[in-house]
Amino acid sequence: MSIDHPYLLFLGDAHDLLAAKTAHGIAQWRRNWCLGQYRMTGCQADLGLPDLSLEAAAAAGARTLVIGVANRGGRIAPAWQEVMVRALELGMDIASGLHQKLVDLPAVAEFAKLEGRRLFDVRHPSRDFEVGTGAPRTGRRLLTVGTDCSVGKMFTSLALERDMRARGMAADFRATGQTGILIAGEGVSVDAVIADFISGAVEWLSPANDPDHWDIVEGQGSLFHPSFAGVSMGLVHGAQAEALIMCHEPGRPHMRGVPGHQVPDVGDCIAFNEQCARLTHPDAKVIGIACNTSALDGAAADRLKGELSDRHQMPCVDPLKDGTDALIDRLG
Amino acid sequence: MSIDHPYLLFLGDAHDLLAAKTAHGIAQWRRNWCLGQYRMTGCQADLGLPDLSLEAAAAAGARTLVIGVANRGGRIAPAWQEVMVRALELGMDIASGLHQKLVDLPAVAEFAKLEGRRLFDVRHPSRDFEVGTGAPRTGRRLLTVGTDCSVGKMFTSLALERDMRARGMAADFRATGQTGILIAGEGVSVDAVIADFISGAVEWLSPANDPDHWDIVEGQGSLFHPSFAGVSMGLVHGAQAEALIMCHEPGRPHMRGVPGHQVPDVGDCIAFNEQCARLTHPDAKVIGIACNTSALDGAAADRLKGELSDRHQMPCVDPLKDGTDALIDRLG
Repeated sequence: MSIDHPYLLFLGDAHDLLAAKTAHGIAQWRRNWCLGQYRMTGCQADLGLPDLSLEAAAAAGARTLVIGVANRGGRIAPAWQEVMVRALELGMDIASGLHQKLVDLPAVAEFAKLEGRRLFDVRHPSRDFEVGTGAPRTGRRLLTVGTDCSVGKMFTSLALERDMRARGMAADFRATGQTGILIAGEGVSVDAVIADFISGAVEWLSPANDPDHWDIVEGQGSLFHPSFAGVSMGLVHGAQAEALIMCHEPGRPHMRGVPGHQVPDVGDCIAFNEQCARLTHPDAKVIGIACNTSALDGAAADRLKGELSDRHQMPCVDPLKDGTDALIDRLG
Repeated sequence: MSIDHPYLLFLGDAHDLLAAKTAHGIAQWRRNWCLGQYRMTGCQADLGLPDLSLEAAAAAGARTLVIGVANRGGRIAPAWQEVMVRALELGMDIASGLHQKLVDLPAVAEFAKLEGRRLFDVRHPSRDFEVGTGAPRTGRRLLTVGTDCSVGKMFTSLALERDMRARGMAADFRATGQTGILIAGEGVSVDAVIADFISGAVEWLSPANDPDHWDIVEGQGSLFHPSFAGVSMGLVHGAQAEALIMCHEPGRPHMRGVPGHQVPDVGDCIAFNEQCARLTHPDAKVIGIACNTSALDGAAADRLKGELSDRHQMPCVDPLKDGTDALIDRLG
């Protein structure tokens, strides 16, 4: 069940680019899937894509209207619903990264059914999963893990996919969060599955594959985050990865959303992730560090990367600035 | 939202006591809540409670019909539904530990609504939870953890509650699985919550309390189980326990349900649980071992308990045979 492209990216009345960060991620990583953007009155976000009417997008072949924007107040406004209904009428599916489900909007859901169109609520898994087994499976797998939430695990995973493919390697990004799913066109929001099935969902997401095929599994949260470590743990076990990349953003005063919880030491985090990952892959190893240095100047960024690399005896890159070749070199 | 007692325990057509093990647990731990048992033709299970008709149970004051039995083939038979409807008609609520939900049975759900009766599907959380915060809270908490699933965490927790109360301590069992919920009359099936909210659900279940009040939180799964460790991890973080009891059953050829995964060494399991628990309670410590020795003869059981106690420098008891006083002595 994958989301068809090309996409028309719906930006609603986003007051800035941050409010449209899901759409921004899609435009950044899958620009060739994006015919254009649809902006309503008052929208302050601009992805640099052509502004298209629904009709023009449909005529150009748009298959899915993608709601990649935060909705103010948590409810989907009637004006948005009118746009959705019109898009369905013009033959598009709709995919949404919002908390509130499209299928819970009677006007939209009924019209979609009538027109035979599909609604993708990518934050909410639409299928059941089996309990994970931990049984060994073929294929090679890499997992991005992190010292905290929102430190660049998705970005790093997508950069790895891009750079591995550029080398001619068989590599697929496996999305575990809503933005990743809209970028990949498929995936599972792992934090939204029933707790019993976390590892099983990830086993389903990254199934047995050819011996030289790489799944790049997008990590979530952190084993050191008191809110989300259960999700991270199930993800580590389900991914059964031989290679882990430790993602880190320096300078945080505390773990995201939880004052009083310090960001763990990178070395402790490496050791603990390896220990957990070895439950399902005895040779699992952190083979490199991806550091988001966007808050540092060039010299400070280089110094930090050098220090982390020396201390942990592995490459450390900022995927945005350096790419991921130094990490891929370590995959053997 | 707690389940009212006294209970009438519904055993259906259970072919043996194992099929009625949930009801068995209730009768074992809350015998004074149980007016009797209701058995259908062919039932081979017997809890030693009076056999009551629905009418006799209602006349005696039964408040809830408790479905504490496995249903063959996974579907609730029409004959069972007739019993349920009659119980509702007689003024009882219904609580069920089955996978299939009572609220999904139209005849039962509609009749319950009509009569103003409550249906408790205890495997399925009926409320939303917040994301866990890991913020320190008052009160004292103990968590049972394990080397594997089904090694006696619920039994140990209930024995601790019983023995602590016998000493005059303020102690409440906090149920995290369906049998425990029916025994406690309330709780949360933690493995059935949305993954993002595992630790938050446990924080809700064991809230801030008086400084000398103990919550005895029922553990689930094992941090070493490739299917369920995510649940166990969130539970460990949410419980924020100062004291952990390591539950163990010797002699298993492998982790439950996953051939190829050996049961961890007790010492490794102690160290790892302490490491994880210290994320939300810096002084968390495993203070004793609860060993299910039912498969061993007396001498072998004593030898094993002595060995575990010596090796790990903490008391080791079989709660069924020894009670839990030696553990409680260590709570300080």
